[in-house]
Amino acid sequence: MEEAEPPVPALGVGMVGYAFMGAAHSQGWRTVGRVFDLPAAPVLAAVCGRDRTAVEAMAQRHGWAAAETDWRALIARDDVHIVDICTPGDSHAEIAIAALEAGKHVLCEKPLANTVEEAQSMVLAARRARERGQLAMVGFNYRRVPALSYARRLVAEGRIGPIRHVRVCYLQDWLVDPDAPLTWRLQRDRAGSGALGDLGAHIVDLAQYLTGEPVVGVSALTETFVRSRPDPGASAPRGEVTVDDAALFTGRLASGALASFEATRMAAGRKNSLRLEVNGESGSLAFDLERLNELSFHDHTEPAHSAGFRRILVTEPEHPYLEAWWPPGHALGYEHTFVHQARDLLEAIATGTDPRPSFADGLQVQRVLAAVEESAEKNAVYTPVQT
Amino acid sequence: MEEAEPPVPALGVGMVGYAFMGAAHSQGWRTVGRVFDLPAAPVLAAVCGRDRTAVEAMAQRHGWAAAETDWRALIARDDVHIVDICTPGDSHAEIAIAALEAGKHVLCEKPLANTVEEAQSMVLAARRARERGQLAMVGFNYRRVPALSYARRLVAEGRIGPIRHVRVCYLQDWLVDPDAPLTWRLQRDRAGSGALGDLGAHIVDLAQYLTGEPVVGVSALTETFVRSRPDPGASAPRGEVTVDDAALFTGRLASGALASFEATRMAAGRKNSLRLEVNGESGSLAFDLERLNELSFHDHTEPAHSAGFRRILVTEPEHPYLEAWWPPGHALGYEHTFVHQARDLLEAIATGTDPRPSFADGLQVQRVLAAVEESAEKNAVYTPVQT
Amino acid sequence: MEEAEPPVPALGVGMVGYAFMGAAHSQGWRTVGRVFDLPAAPVLAAVCGRDRTAVEAMAQRHGWAAAETDWRALIARDDVHIVDICTPGDSHAEIAIAALEAGKHVLCEKPLANTVEEAQSMVLAARRARERGQLAMVGFNYRRVPALSYARRLVAEGRIGPIRHVRVCYLQDWLVDPDAPLTWRLQRDRAGSGALGDLGAHIVDLAQYLTGEPVVGVSALTETFVRSRPDPGASAPRGEVTVDDAALFTGRLASGALASFEATRMAAGRKNSLRLEVNGESGSLAFDLERLNELSFHDHTEPAHSAGFRRILVTEPEHPYLEAWWPPGHALGYEHTFVHQARDLLEAIATGTDPRPSFADGLQVQRVLAAVEESAEKNAVYTPVQT
Amino acid sequence: MEEAEPPVPALGVGMVGYAFMGAAHSQGWRTVGRVFDLPAAPVLAAVCGRDRTAVEAMAQRHGWAAAETDWRALIARDDVHIVDICTPGDSHAEIAIAALEAGKHVLCEKPLANTVEEAQSMVLAARRARERGQLAMVGFNYRRVPALSYARRLVAEGRIGPIRHVRVCYLQDWLVDPDAPLTWRLQRDRAGSGALGDLGAHIVDLAQYLTGEPVVGVSALTETFVRSRPDPGASAPRGEVTVDDAALFTGRLASGALASFEATRMAAGRKNSLRLEVNGESGSLAFDLERLNELSFHDHTEPAHSAGFRRILVTEPEHPYLEAWWPPGHALGYEHTFVHQARDLLEAIATGTDPRPSFADGLQVQRVLAAVEESAEKNAVYTPVQT
Repeated sequence: MEEAEPPVPALGVGMVGYAFMGAAHSQGWRTVGRVFDLPAAPVLAAVCGRDRTAVEAMAQRHGWAAAETDWRALIARDDVHIVDICTPGDSHAEIAIAALEAGKHVLCEKPLANTVEEAQSMVLAARRARERGQLAMVGFNYRRVPALSYARRLVAEGRIGPIRHVRVCYLQDWLVDPDAPLTWRLQRDRAGSGALGDLGAHIVDLAQYLTGEPVVGVSALTETFVRSRPDPGASAPRGEVTVDDAALFTGRLASGALASFEATRMAAGRKNSLRLEVNGESGSLAFDLERLNELSFHDHTEPAHSAGFRRILVTEPEHPYLEAWWPPGHALGYEHTFVHQARDLLEAIATGTDPRPSFADGLQVQRVLAAVEESAEKNAVYTPVQT
Repeated sequence: MEEAEPPVPALGVGMVGYAFMGAAHSQGWRTVGRVFDLPAAPVLAAVCGRDRTAVEAMAQRHGWAAAETDWRALIARDDVHIVDICTPGDSHAEIAIAALEAGKHVLCEKPLANTVEEAQSMVLAARRARERGQLAMVGFNYRRVPALSYARRLVAEGRIGPIRHVRVCYLQDWLVDPDAPLTWRLQRDRAGSGALGDLGAHIVDLAQYLTGEPVVGVSALTETFVRSRPDPGASAPRGEVTVDDAALFTGRLASGALASFEATRMAAGRKNSLRLEVNGESGSLAFDLERLNELSFHDHTEPAHSAGFRRILVTEPEHPYLEAWWPPGHALGYEHTFVHQARDLLEAIATGTDPRPSFADGLQVQRVLAAVEESAEKNAVYTPVQT
Repeated sequence: MEEAEPPVPALGVGMVGYAFMGAAHSQGWRTVGRVFDLPAAPVLAAVCGRDRTAVEAMAQRHGWAAAETDWRALIARDDVHIVDICTPGDSHAEIAIAALEAGKHVLCEKPLANTVEEAQSMVLAARRARERGQLAMVGFNYRRVPALSYARRLVAEGRIGPIRHVRVCYLQDWLVDPDAPLTWRLQRDRAGSGALGDLGAHIVDLAQYLTGEPVVGVSALTETFVRSRPDPGASAPRGEVTVDDAALFTGRLASGALASFEATRMAAGRKNSLRLEVNGESGSLAFDLERLNELSFHDHTEPAHSAGFRRILVTEPEHPYLEAWWPPGHALGYEHTFVHQARDLLEAIATGTDPRPSFADGLQVQRVLAAVEESAEKNAVYTPVQT
Repeated sequence: MEEAEPPVPALGVGMVGYAFMGAAHSQGWRTVGRVFDLPAAPVLAAVCGRDRTAVEAMAQRHGWAAAETDWRALIARDDVHIVDICTPGDSHAEIAIAALEAGKHVLCEKPLANTVEEAQSMVLAARRARERGQLAMVGFNYRRVPALSYARRLVAEGRIGPIRHVRVCYLQDWLVDPDAPLTWRLQRDRAGSGALGDLGAHIVDLAQYLTGEPVVGVSALTETFVRSRPDPGASAPRGEVTVDDAALFTGRLASGALASFEATRMAAGRKNSLRLEVNGESGSLAFDLERLNELSFHDHTEPAHSAGFRRILVTEPEHPYLEAWWPPGHALGYEHTFVHQARDLLEAIATGTDPRPSFADGLQVQRVLAAVEESAEKNAVYTPVQT
């Protein structure tokens, strides 16, 4: 009797992939109904992975009712209404399109795909599915950090005015050591790109989400500082790194605002530092993912002598998602973004509204990343983002 | 099949109380097995509250298999092996002692009791139960903030040397408004005391935990700034506040170190700011619960020119509890302290070791709080803590 | 022609003492006319110290026109109109009273004196001098940190409402090393007290200045952690430390607000950390001397969702003293408090208004410190401050 | 007798320009001898400006012995040995070259010139003058912030290892208001460029100084958000802004490290926020000019669990310049960079060593800025810096 009973309908979730993202999504699906009043109750129906022993252990641990080893079988299950894709980017398009065509709602991890072409086909599939009542969402979970949802609200309400600058860095340091091993994340055929697709996708999405404006052109430098790394599973002692360690790009938003982006896995001491700042004519916002319960807000309409960046602890009941949680001042963590993501998708399904970020939003991010790669290949020349 | 199967034995949990703490503990019990490899699998057997409709709704929401309205019935259940007490302090002693005598393990929320006498009888009951193999733990959950567990490790390893100073504040602001309503927390007969028992208990426990030393004497001032508040359920428009709004006390640790404590619900803008600092001959530590993933550490053995408080993001696999969680830099939240608490109690039960904080630890806190109240009544005179 | 010419009258300054404070005051006197439009131009007439060679070198370096070795001779000089006393506290009363009786204005370093009795006689002397037109001021220079002057303005304007809490720490670490040498600052006969008089005097003055309320009673613990230290000039290898290393006290302000104070030289890693916070019914203020260009202000009348402590960079022309300095964002330093102090005294002399902090303000601080010492001797019992 | 007597020789300073920079330099020259033991004593011989009344008032206020209205006359004075140029950039080359040819040492404010050609001619003039014993230095004063001098020392000692990333922003907000007036700083013919030359010059110099590596190529976007502004002195109500409001550029250092730069006057709430971070293989450094007494240092060779960015208060006697100042923890301010600059130039003159930053360093900055402008005109294409 752990899941809520009628009148709330149950919606079965089938998840493909069971590593880091799979664990995070599992926490989201299992927790969402404990915290939020939901219009539909998620049931952890089945999880899918290629290694039967491993996926069964994962199902056991995370409370999935069944385990599958073929994603096509998962999609075919009658008790699966939502397909949640947590695999590497090279398989997103195939799985998502098949799931949509099988009449399932789809939640797809970011980046939407490894190429613009794949992303386009996914958008088309989502459009067709929409007509049949299926919804598709891409998993840019940081939109669901309450501080960032609230930041978006402030921008939308005009509290910072016309935007002049956006600057976003996403800094990690797990590749600083030249002997950190080669993994699928460092191989172009699996990962598509390196810091760019993994971290850069997040910050491009956030910049567009917060400002409500698309990035219209970019100029980019990318770099692979360490070109070969120990490859435990290979014959040669070191294998070639075929993706970027870092990507640095500037750009313009539709309004003419300037944007600055940096994604790197080589910033010693920065563990998960997604830092952003937006400067407008009436105010500014600043945020750091390493302090995710806080938003800094400067109100430029205040008298200069009493103005300053205020540290808002985004834990008040008036803040997005917070009414359902703990009293003010009691911090949320990283995993709760997945709880919020689950909530928003279930709400959208129940009400038949289009969830955001949509596959079209994911495609737009992909187009920016493609323009970044094109610019990086063309000597950093300013490269318009295709529309 | 949500709970893990044998060979891991199952342990049924019965929880008394279902408000804020009940929700937090539920999250702890439900999540712990998803994250940690456990020697015993908790089963959410039953939750107890006096209002049948409310407690059944809570059971439904949080996944408790049954609901009870009489705590004696809960204790009597065969499928309950651990009794988790989340009620106000005035009922702790009765329930805990009965549960221990019924052969159950007990987890009791802080403060252990409202009086030293009650706490003493609980310690005696725990001692007797220990001989029969039952364990008792008190729920000072902040010991399970990884940054504070790690701080304790640094102190125990001698990284800060002999201790000179401990200063701890616990600042909240929900009573700043003189028209905030009268609740059970503001009534002496239910709550025992105000900020002192609620917030002060936490900081006394932490000071003793981090330093490994008892507080041996105190000097105290307490104050009720707003003496009457709107009382929705009463005949008179405003009822009397019979507990302290704030408690300020200084003290000495066994080693002679000086300690400073402040607990208040009247610090505008401070939502849940448990700030502490420990200064030793070889280093210092600082922490703020509003940034609970961080610990500041100053190593005084460094050359002066390169020394400074370093901000350690306590999210590395080498940190307490962290190996089971997310990659470095991915923040945990408030509720995860309850997951860790559940883990530690289950480990203790499985291995037959004594969990900490013990009821004796809770009694020691109670004795300090009693000395604080006595000092406050005696014009702040330095009052030894009874042993 | 370095000093400004008429119509602005010149005022000769004679300074007694030439160590750390002497150097700081010299910077103040020499710089003030370069920055501010003054009603009177200070002339660095003469500096006095007992060691002729040393004082002449100091005069040379800091631009004093003459050097004296007897403070009575300095006071007797016709070209000295202001006597600036920078000696240890045990000589303040004698010099200040003599200077006032000789018809000079007096600026006296804090603490005003080593005893309440001395301070009282100084207040009487100042009162008599006032009738003759001479002014007396005590050098609590931190009142002249622009952020703190501005904090006082916010309190006076009612921006934080009725005050509930004041907490102030002054933490240094130069005595953490048990082998730091014995100096005059560690000897009761010269220094009066230790951390209490040196650091505690500052924080008591600031608490009273910012709130506009006197401390009316205190409860105190003091401690000397290291009882003997190497004494280079003595026969025995180590001499006795006769002052406190640390003083911890709580108290009440006239309005009933609670106050917490800590002064220590044993807080490893804290170099000059005077941290304070004031909580009122409508807002709060926070400050740290290690970041002296910043003031934190929380406006509790804001909607909760957009409220938070804002970091005001106190470098705007609307801020106290700032109009005369650099553009916004260009930091001032410690020494500029002495420039501001000189400005305010010169303004007071030119306009015949009473400068603050007055000797009476200094006496009030002394009375609080005396109550602290009395309480510490009497087992921390709450001790009213004499009036 | 204010200046120090022999055996220390006196060196007369003649300053051209007397606005903001003139005031700051005056403070530097007047204070340096009070704080440091100098091998040569600066004498404030004469200041020069076109408006006789204004320059005489300035001389009076800041203690310059004489005032001139023609810079050629200033250069010709026998009592002037050092010419200190504080005028807008369009006059730097002419004055500096003439001064060097007249046998004077030269300190020239940044940017060295408005064009590469002018800067080249200045370098040639400095080279010729060097043979005659005259020295030339450019006034990138932020190199003399002790925290940044110390940062350079840490890099040079290898504490952060091979460098991967440099990111520097210089954010101000005085042009956020679209009605802020048109000044010479917004006119290309006087200022050369906008945020780029004013703020960008500083951050390019710092990036090169801290890393010890030149920027070898850049890709740039620049923008003028507000194209016309009120022009008080003109016939039309608004005049055209002919310089950039903001410049955003990325680049590569000689070693292959990536660099990111942003200079803007449109970042609401950022007053003087020069923020930089350097990431190396062994550690990282971070700094913000709004907290100029602090340096953040992460030592990546520490065990991960105890590593973190430490906040070093750069006020210890072992830190650059600090031995001469106040005790630890006593903050310096913006103006003290000019004191340090004066010290270093006087030391160089006395010892006959080449001061840094040299005119060649200034030329290198100019070449980077020229490449930025060229890249911005050529659609952001990566543009090598000329050598």
